[in-house]
Amino acid sequence: MDLTAISDPSFLKDLSNDELEALATDIRAFLINELSATGGHIGPNLGVVELTIALHRAFDSPKDKILWDVGHQAYVHKILTGRACDFDTLRQYKGLCGFPKRIESEHDIWETGHSSTSLSAAMGMAAARDIKRMNNYVVPVIGDGALTGGMALEALNHIGSEKTDMTVILNDNEMSIAPNVGALHNVLGRLRTAGKYNKAKDELEFLLKKVPAVGGKLAATAERVKDSLKYLLVSGVFFEELGFTYLGPVDGHSLDDLEAHLNYAKKMDGPVLVHVITKKGKGFRPAEEDKIGTWHGTGPYKLETGAFVKSPASGPAWSALVSETVRRIARQDRRVVAITPAMPVGSKLEGFASEFPDRMFDVGIAEQHAATMAAGMAAEGMKPFLAIYSTFLQRAYDQMLHDISRQNLNVFVGIDRAGLVGADGETHQGVFDIAFLRSMPNFTIMMPKDENEGQHMVRTAISYDGGPIALRYPRGNGIGVPMDEELREIPIGSWEILKEGKDAAILTFGTTIPMAFAAAERLAEKGIDAEIVNARFIKPFDEEMMIRLLDREIPIMTVEEAVLAGGFGSAVLEFAHDHGYQDSVIGRMGIPDQFIEHGNVNELLKEIGMTDENLAVQVEELIGSSRQERTKVL
Amino acid sequence: MDLTAISDPSFLKDLSNDELEALATDIRAFLINELSATGGHIGPNLGVVELTIALHRAFDSPKDKILWDVGHQAYVHKILTGRACDFDTLRQYKGLCGFPKRIESEHDIWETGHSSTSLSAAMGMAAARDIKRMNNYVVPVIGDGALTGGMALEALNHIGSEKTDMTVILNDNEMSIAPNVGALHNVLGRLRTAGKYNKAKDELEFLLKKVPAVGGKLAATAERVKDSLKYLLVSGVFFEELGFTYLGPVDGHSLDDLEAHLNYAKKMDGPVLVHVITKKGKGFRPAEEDKIGTWHGTGPYKLETGAFVKSPASGPAWSALVSETVRRIARQDRRVVAITPAMPVGSKLEGFASEFPDRMFDVGIAEQHAATMAAGMAAEGMKPFLAIYSTFLQRAYDQMLHDISRQNLNVFVGIDRAGLVGADGETHQGVFDIAFLRSMPNFTIMMPKDENEGQHMVRTAISYDGGPIALRYPRGNGIGVPMDEELREIPIGSWEILKEGKDAAILTFGTTIPMAFAAAERLAEKGIDAEIVNARFIKPFDEEMMIRLLDREIPIMTVEEAVLAGGFGSAVLEFAHDHGYQDSVIGRMGIPDQFIEHGNVNELLKEIGMTDENLAVQVEELIGSSRQERTKVL
Repeated sequence: MDLTAISDPSFLKDLSNDELEALATDIRAFLINELSATGGHIGPNLGVVELTIALHRAFDSPKDKILWDVGHQAYVHKILTGRACDFDTLRQYKGLCGFPKRIESEHDIWETGHSSTSLSAAMGMAAARDIKRMNNYVVPVIGDGALTGGMALEALNHIGSEKTDMTVILNDNEMSIAPNVGALHNVLGRLRTAGKYNKAKDELEFLLKKVPAVGGKLAATAERVKDSLKYLLVSGVFFEELGFTYLGPVDGHSLDDLEAHLNYAKKMDGPVLVHVITKKGKGFRPAEEDKIGTWHGTGPYKLETGAFVKSPASGPAWSALVSETVRRIARQDRRVVAITPAMPVGSKLEGFASEFPDRMFDVGIAEQHAATMAAGMAAEGMKPFLAIYSTFLQRAYDQMLHDISRQNLNVFVGIDRAGLVGADGETHQGVFDIAFLRSMPNFTIMMPKDENEGQHMVRTAISYDGGPIALRYPRGNGIGVPMDEELREIPIGSWEILKEGKDAAILTFGTTIPMAFAAAERLAEKGIDAEIVNARFIKPFDEEMMIRLLDREIPIMTVEEAVLAGGFGSAVLEFAHDHGYQDSVIGRMGIPDQFIEHGNVNELLKEIGMTDENLAVQVEELIGSSRQERTKVL
Repeated sequence: MDLTAISDPSFLKDLSNDELEALATDIRAFLINELSATGGHIGPNLGVVELTIALHRAFDSPKDKILWDVGHQAYVHKILTGRACDFDTLRQYKGLCGFPKRIESEHDIWETGHSSTSLSAAMGMAAARDIKRMNNYVVPVIGDGALTGGMALEALNHIGSEKTDMTVILNDNEMSIAPNVGALHNVLGRLRTAGKYNKAKDELEFLLKKVPAVGGKLAATAERVKDSLKYLLVSGVFFEELGFTYLGPVDGHSLDDLEAHLNYAKKMDGPVLVHVITKKGKGFRPAEEDKIGTWHGTGPYKLETGAFVKSPASGPAWSALVSETVRRIARQDRRVVAITPAMPVGSKLEGFASEFPDRMFDVGIAEQHAATMAAGMAAEGMKPFLAIYSTFLQRAYDQMLHDISRQNLNVFVGIDRAGLVGADGETHQGVFDIAFLRSMPNFTIMMPKDENEGQHMVRTAISYDGGPIALRYPRGNGIGVPMDEELREIPIGSWEILKEGKDAAILTFGTTIPMAFAAAERLAEKGIDAEIVNARFIKPFDEEMMIRLLDREIPIMTVEEAVLAGGFGSAVLEFAHDHGYQDSVIGRMGIPDQFIEHGNVNELLKEIGMTDENLAVQVEELIGSSRQERTKVL
């Protein structure tokens, strides 16, 4: 059928089984075709085609609340709720968001991006429903990987104890972002193979329900029988211990099976967990055969071969550069270990893992645990490298503060995907870490100007014994500079002047350094000679250089691909005023007080005025205002 | 015995059972007596006297790593490791810390304060041990309440799957800070009553071990028998599902029982969980009989009667004021609900809970879930009041940012214990929330000058429909101002001038306003006329007033009982420079870039120079520097 003609999911209720099967086929073909051009989360979405159809048939969205945990598997949901026509703009600037987005559709009732939030939100929505005495269903859909996140476990625990009416869909696929870690996964594995026991149990429970409840004694016996039954059979014991009724496992690609179980779940009181087994990438061979997560989220690919359309990269991938340098140092230093919360592929730690399997820890989606585990290792003299995306580091705020910075432990935090990340959009932009880390005592924060400096900073971080040290690096690739053979340490808190200049100084670091050079060229055309400082230590400052700069009384412009409120520029202001430079002329460029949506990073930067043109204009204005001020005072 | 003569716990190994019992009695008497003068966490410590003795007998600290989760139950550990003589200074300025502290003793190998960190740290230490091929034991001691925290669950999951050697002590007492919440607690409840089943299981497992492993088949049968046994018996199934060997329940007040189980645990491979049942307050009747947590942590009390020594309070307790005003508004507004992560007593929500039991949610120690559950309720049109201590809000950073601020949901965050908290010390100071919340778009942040303004701010927060709004209030009591009958709304972003002045302006809010007045008096004596502004909206600013102030070109001094890096004063600097006031003279007073230890709040403020004397001096200097600057430029 023509998917772009769909306006809302109500049509599903009138379709025959054959028509539904045909629809599933059409949706798969559509996704495989559309995403070959745009890229996107192909694997997860191919896995939930039947599940999404079944959910929209069994429930009445948006009255019933369907919440997509993580959210990158909501493409089928978007198609069924009238957005197929927008898929050519997927994850592009001003285009369709890759995650549920409330302004896009009334069917997107909860926005996600980070994992493991859906159960808590569902609990809130279910509690609200009960207070309002409404009777809608609440249906969070959560993957087995997301279930290892602490807040999901907190929520399971609370929902189970409150006995809140809710249908939790556990979308269990064997290929999560990386092979799942943890005991919870073993439990799920056992459940997956326990289909027949479960069937037996269902039948027995059905019979037990027919036992007439004559007086307390018989009922109590039935209860006890059910209880021992519960433990006799291998299925669902974990969730039932937590207070859920467990249904499944269900074949997530059988519309019949799904429909039967969802309808059964609807009739039950209290929290129900429907365990659905799906296959990531279902129906597209390259994605089905993927073992390590290559097809989890992709760029454009060739339909015929499944080969990726590579964009030309100048330098090495930042994640690889950092992880491989850690690996190189680990050969000489047995104290070096690596910890990742479920991102061994994204953080390019496969090489480290294969060379040092006993010093590599993938803890699953569990950022809090990862951070404090690193702290524990540091307390015992190890040198843990905690590789974590900037946006996910937000999950470990208190662990950074309370455990690592407060105890001043030598944890090396590799902040991957720092800065704007592009297509993943506002839930994933890595722009808050400077503001939140720099208020933590003892933390050193660095960002390199290029991959050569980056490798030296890895050396610096591992050699450093003064406490926690963070190395920020962006998504994507380096700029292709020559690499030094020998690694060296960069003195902590040392900046460098990249270009001297007498009229103004631009203080910046990392990805925005090229912007500073371009702006300086523009300024030079106007006869303005701008200095460019590589402020590679965001904390601590190069105090000597900073004071020399302030003494020169030239305007200072800070540039950062991070939030302005409390960021690096803010630290420069603090420094100037704290040191008595009350009349220093300082301007700041960075991310304003708003969330930045998805799109190409350059388009996003342009939207918020972070361009070399604008930087040149602002520096010029700053010089002007400075002269004006002085004139006024005179 | 003379407890102050103890230098380290090795002496325990030579004591007879009678001597150990006598020691336990002496420690209890010592604690009850000492804490009557100093206050402290009496309940939790009386509960772990035998457990701590048994741990230090069974293990060799500090070679073996004993980690105290939360840490307020480490007093007995402090006594046994040579610190009895310091108990008269407990939780006082420069005195003994109420939590494990590495600088105090080599036996304090891990610092705590916030809950649920010990298992992750233990995993880090155990992993470090295994890499270093050492053979020490790692023994985290965690309470049943702390086990509901997400990061503890993340760690359990990881430890269980890695099969890491570790002895987890689950200290299960019926009276946690508040009655425990959650399904996990129900599981523990079931375990508590399952003693005999467990004994049967132990014996059977013992017998099964004697079955000779002749070939795969018999072994497999034994495995299967053990497996079904595992589910047949009620005990430990939850933890065993996660990969732990479960031992217990153990009578936590029987030294024999403890010793036997700890020694058994030491012989086992892989992770072992020893389930110890203790009674909080054991041996001190007022604490034993406490049902709601009054004796969890206390101030000084009378030994004979157990009556608390009340310090004279001028106004109502801040927590009560806020919660009771929420309750008052909830009578008219059914959308108002209250959510607390295990702090119904501390947050004084008992009244709300008894009047609106169906709109009150105590989710246990689960700050992340609490925050996102609030977001879910707000998404459904409710008006959730999330009462949370500033220091614990750190655990919900990403939930504040990703779920609440990004979706701009109407969650009312009551930030209790904002500012320095005193005796609990550096793990509990509520000084980071301004710096981290103000970089989140959409957040409104308020702090009232007194309890009357406080009650109006509660009204303001609940009426506000523009997104998340936080109300900060300090630990302790209001200042005793008259209270308006009628509640009213305060215009968002409106400051007020509390005292006009022509020479300088002090911008401050909340607890530091009296300091500003005292400083202004001192300045008046020198002929300096200082203005005092109640900057009650930390975000957004009263832009009009701010610009008027800047236009007047008088020096501005900001004062905040919060970290300076990225704080309110930093926002004032940003505002001034962003609006072209490049030569504005601005000074800042607040918490410097260091952790603030325990002690009386006034002593702590004095230590960091936050006094009215010093404020007056700094304002004076600012005026001087301002004149000097202008002279220099002229």
